Amino acid sequence: MKFFINKENLLFAIQSVQRAVSQKSPLPILTGIKFSCEEDKLVLSATDFEISVRCAVPATVEESGSLVIPARYITEFARRLPDSIIEFEAGPDSTMAVIRYGDSEFNINGYDASEFPSFVIPEEEFSFKLDADLFKEIIKQVTFAVSTEESRPVFTGVFFEIVAGRLTIVATDTFRLALRHTAINEETPELINVIVPGKTLNELARTADPKSIVEVIIGKTHAAFITGEIQIIARLIPGKFPSYRQVIPNQFISEIKIPLKDFLESAERVALLAGENNLLVSLYIRENHVVLNMRSETGWIREEIKSEVNGDKLEISFNVRYLCDVLRSINYEQLVVRFTGPLTPALIIPEDNKDYLSILVPARLSRE
Amino acid sequence: MKFFINKENLLFAIQSVQRAVSQKSPLPILTGIKFSCEEDKLVLSATDFEISVRCAVPATVEESGSLVIPARYITEFARRLPDSIIEFEAGPDSTMAVIRYGDSEFNINGYDASEFPSFVIPEEEFSFKLDADLFKEIIKQVTFAVSTEESRPVFTGVFFEIVAGRLTIVATDTFRLALRHTAINEETPELINVIVPGKTLNELARTADPKSIVEVIIGKTHAAFITGEIQIIARLIPGKFPSYRQVIPNQFISEIKIPLKDFLESAERVALLAGENNLLVSLYIRENHVVLNMRSETGWIREEIKSEVNGDKLEISFNVRYLCDVLRSINYEQLVVRFTGPLTPALIIPEDNKDYLSILVPARLSRE
Repeated sequence: MKFFINKENLLFAIQSVQRAVSQKSPLPILTGIKFSCEEDKLVLSATDFEISVRCAVPATVEESGSLVIPARYITEFARRLPDSIIEFEAGPDSTMAVIRYGDSEFNINGYDASEFPSFVIPEEEFSFKLDADLFKEIIKQVTFAVSTEESRPVFTGVFFEIVAGRLTIVATDTFRLALRHTAINEETPELINVIVPGKTLNELARTADPKSIVEVIIGKTHAAFITGEIQIIARLIPGKFPSYRQVIPNQFISEIKIPLKDFLESAERVALLAGENNLLVSLYIRENHVVLNMRSETGWIREEIKSEVNGDKLEISFNVRYLCDVLRSINYEQLVVRFTGPLTPALIIPEDNKDYLSILVPARLSRE
Repeated sequence: MKFFINKENLLFAIQSVQRAVSQKSPLPILTGIKFSCEEDKLVLSATDFEISVRCAVPATVEESGSLVIPARYITEFARRLPDSIIEFEAGPDSTMAVIRYGDSEFNINGYDASEFPSFVIPEEEFSFKLDADLFKEIIKQVTFAVSTEESRPVFTGVFFEIVAGRLTIVATDTFRLALRHTAINEETPELINVIVPGKTLNELARTADPKSIVEVIIGKTHAAFITGEIQIIARLIPGKFPSYRQVIPNQFISEIKIPLKDFLESAERVALLAGENNLLVSLYIRENHVVLNMRSETGWIREEIKSEVNGDKLEISFNVRYLCDVLRSINYEQLVVRFTGPLTPALIIPEDNKDYLSILVPARLSRE
């Protein structure tokens, strides 16, 4: 292997794949990035078996071949290289990389690339395309509700359901649920549903270029997300996602219309008083305003927000962090919150948009 | 106590004093910020007994008085306040703060301000003024060499020596030393020398407004640094600073002239290979270039830098982190490094400036 590359392309490729590098794998080779070159491309790939990322960039290839280089060193090193053409060459036994720049040279022990897991785009069952900025938005709107408890794997994922030109994505940790519908151009002949790890989707939403297109390919055991020269493969989570339709309430005793900005800012101030023993914010639904209230050993806070209120007066308590999570993740000016009772789930929806909803389960007041 | 203030002034004052708040004091009141108001000012102060900071900002005072408010809550809270006029009032027993904004209200338990340590500018022995940007520069040039070992307190400080219109500041941890001379306008009748905690100076250099003037007041046990509406008092470190003059070498066997940028970038790449067991970079001084070299289990690196070389060829080894520290802290284009031998201290000075010097003690090669 021997190639020449400029610093900018090298850095872009390394930064694109580095999040998939295994931090503490029992297999040392997975702490490396695979460098592979042929024709006029350098192809980098990394995997921790849950997520695999591959990125191709232009390079002047003198001799094809591949080599795995420890990510920890090459990432920092590439950032500190001079802005010049960099030469990479595999040492004689193909496990050492020799990197030349100016009159200097860096030699680093690597691994035999033949032992690196191969990168295979899953065989396509169904695929569709979305604008990357829409993809980022819908992912952000649901992933806050993903569970972090590894003991119940299906809740750590985001459910993708596709039927009749409509994609529905759902996440829940049983205390809250977030759901988003999006139209897609492709029609699927039958219902498709899979669970994609939430962490992978967050990573994808973080890195995707907002101006690009994301192609989503769904296979039997894996899904692939392709945007520009970057390909990401995620292992699907096996299991059955809970039936979300039956938990969406449809009868309500009262409803408020409230500006998101005011609601979020008040909730965030209230959250400052939250400690390990007091996470509950009480909402008092009154005639033309909502009061948020929390009391702790340190003090108490009372936030009053003007709001259109219809239906019964009500007092209900939520985990204040869960309330902040949902308000931070959605991006609509005016929200409608519908209540089914003081101890039953509330529904949060945008005022003029039927594509999004979120459900929040109330908590009993700790002083009860 | 009752006053009205805008968010911007409140935040500025809190952020100015919060670094002096004690993080884990046995005295709970020191985890608070003292709010005090009289005439048309709100005065905030905080202290951990090593450093005390005071900041005054304009406010509309309705009733004078003071109160100590827990820093942890008020700092975050002030950041999240709406951009409106905020009302502060002490509760009836003067240990609770009531903060009103819009239709909302935050109540937080505080402490009786009469138990808070008083803030006293030390009685002046000598004082001088410096432009804040110069002050920031000279502090940065020496504090990297301050020791972090609390067992030898004098080395954790920066030595200030003032004689005949010249300020000399020096820091050393015995492995390296950094010294900077600066002319000051005031003449002192006798030699003044004190040791100021390095941490305090770093904090001061970080916060001082670059366009302002820093007034330094030196007393018997404390020094004060005054810039604009911010006053910082530092406890002086008792003890005798080692005599720095006799450790500055004055006979050399060789000398290099080297661009700082090239030297630093090479040293930083070398430092990437440094681990717990290999911190030594070898410098080979050759005819018209310098080679930096490091070898570890992971690989090896060879950096070659063009340089004017006078005197003997030489091989010398340094702790690579110490070398990076000094190169990062000084800001001159061209450096001169003078060597006294392979196992004796080297002197680093700017090519055209006699106000700065740094000394680096070599390390024996670990493979010897």
